[in-house]
Amino acid sequence: MIQVAGIDELRHHVATARNAGQTVALVPTMGCLHRGHRSLFAVARRQSDFVVVSIFVNPLQFGPTEDFDRYPRTPEDDAAICRKEGVALLFSPEPETMYAPDHSVVVEETSLSRGLCGAHRSGHFRGVTTVVAKLFNIVQPDIAVFGQKDAQQTAIIRRMVRDLNIPVRIVAAPTIRESDGLALSSRNRLLDHDTRRRATVIHHSLCAALESYRRGERDAGRIRRDIVSRIEEQPSFSVEYAAAIDAGTLEPVSRLRSNVLLAVAVRTGNVRLIDNVSIA
Amino acid sequence: MIQVAGIDELRHHVATARNAGQTVALVPTMGCLHRGHRSLFAVARRQSDFVVVSIFVNPLQFGPTEDFDRYPRTPEDDAAICRKEGVALLFSPEPETMYAPDHSVVVEETSLSRGLCGAHRSGHFRGVTTVVAKLFNIVQPDIAVFGQKDAQQTAIIRRMVRDLNIPVRIVAAPTIRESDGLALSSRNRLLDHDTRRRATVIHHSLCAALESYRRGERDAGRIRRDIVSRIEEQPSFSVEYAAAIDAGTLEPVSRLRSNVLLAVAVRTGNVRLIDNVSIA
Repeated sequence: MIQVAGIDELRHHVATARNAGQTVALVPTMGCLHRGHRSLFAVARRQSDFVVVSIFVNPLQFGPTEDFDRYPRTPEDDAAICRKEGVALLFSPEPETMYAPDHSVVVEETSLSRGLCGAHRSGHFRGVTTVVAKLFNIVQPDIAVFGQKDAQQTAIIRRMVRDLNIPVRIVAAPTIRESDGLALSSRNRLLDHDTRRRATVIHHSLCAALESYRRGERDAGRIRRDIVSRIEEQPSFSVEYAAAIDAGTLEPVSRLRSNVLLAVAVRTGNVRLIDNVSIA
Repeated sequence: MIQVAGIDELRHHVATARNAGQTVALVPTMGCLHRGHRSLFAVARRQSDFVVVSIFVNPLQFGPTEDFDRYPRTPEDDAAICRKEGVALLFSPEPETMYAPDHSVVVEETSLSRGLCGAHRSGHFRGVTTVVAKLFNIVQPDIAVFGQKDAQQTAIIRRMVRDLNIPVRIVAAPTIRESDGLALSSRNRLLDHDTRRRATVIHHSLCAALESYRRGERDAGRIRRDIVSRIEEQPSFSVEYAAAIDAGTLEPVSRLRSNVLLAVAVRTGNVRLIDNVSIA
């Protein structure tokens, strides 16, 4: 596996792969890799010849009061995981490589990014779209793989690709879960033992909502209230949002139907966890 | 010459040129082509094999009270000029091709775009960076040629390319002038005969400023006042700004020196004209 920190070096290796007729996939990550990321790498490997993984904890997508400094970083474990998963090139740039001191250009999505996580994390998605646009220009991949766990992010990236005519195909890979249902996230390791155990309530509340839907419930308001009350029964858990939204436009719906996502963001202590399920 | 209005068609032809080993240049324009544009095409032709010209009067860069509807359009003359100038492909998309009804992603430069024209045309440069980012992604040229007459625009495009890591080289081509000094602009044809004749004052005021500099004047404030008073001696001419700025950062300077631009924007009737000269 090739490991580089510089943009010119990365471009050189990607050009070599391209000249050998290989197709290129990019999986952008913030590191602290887990089984969820590994599933993205596997999707990338199946659909391309040369898999590039970027690891970059992007300062631009963290608010001033958010967990940028605290965000877990495990570079050696990450490299070992990439190697094992057949990643061809690991790109780990320094912040100075990605942002000039007088950096002044942003990419901003102004519609899908307003609600849900966007309403609670000011500037977050502007940071995401800016860094992903940069990574697309640096790597120029044929495909890029994102996790459906970050449903809003994936919808925003798709919109960016459409609206800026970026020549890349976006692939969304399904959420990977622990055996007890908790969606994998680098932030899970910030939970203490007891909170980690009780965090299963997030996924269980979504499964209960799907079960209500199967039994005929169609009222989005009632379903959302059930999710909130179930999660907030757990001491120290508070729901930031519980939404029923169209999977494409992310607009809230009042009646449940197929192609609707049930999405939640939950705070416990100073950790923020998100999850979603889709009505088939 | 190939003429297309669709993105897939354009990409097909550019890919064919690339596969034949040709390098690609893009010259983005709003049409109403004149000798200034022709000089950009000539630069593009000298530095690449396959010259793409786009003609698109971009609604996103016109303010609600600006001259989008009135902006001159001469599609047949434009095609004839492109053909004559050795342009390989003319891309003239419809607005619906460029912007989906729910278009929601913009590219925004937040520093260089604040002053000068940006201070007087709210949202203008956001429209420019967004459409140019789209055109770069659609054509993926090796080089793109812009006119130094639009000095602020060219500086902002350079910044966008740097900050978003867009793999294109920006070439700035010198301003082309009428024999009496007026910088070529599609808007010149909106001037009546008498105003057109008196519009030479714009360039003459900048030349007089350069002459003062040669004679030893270094005070930017004095130079700016001289430019303003000279232009505003002409009835109906008013100066929107007269600035002495660093050519790279566009920051105002108080002392003249090399690598400083003297830039003006002037209104006469409902026509707005810009020009600039550089201190060598």
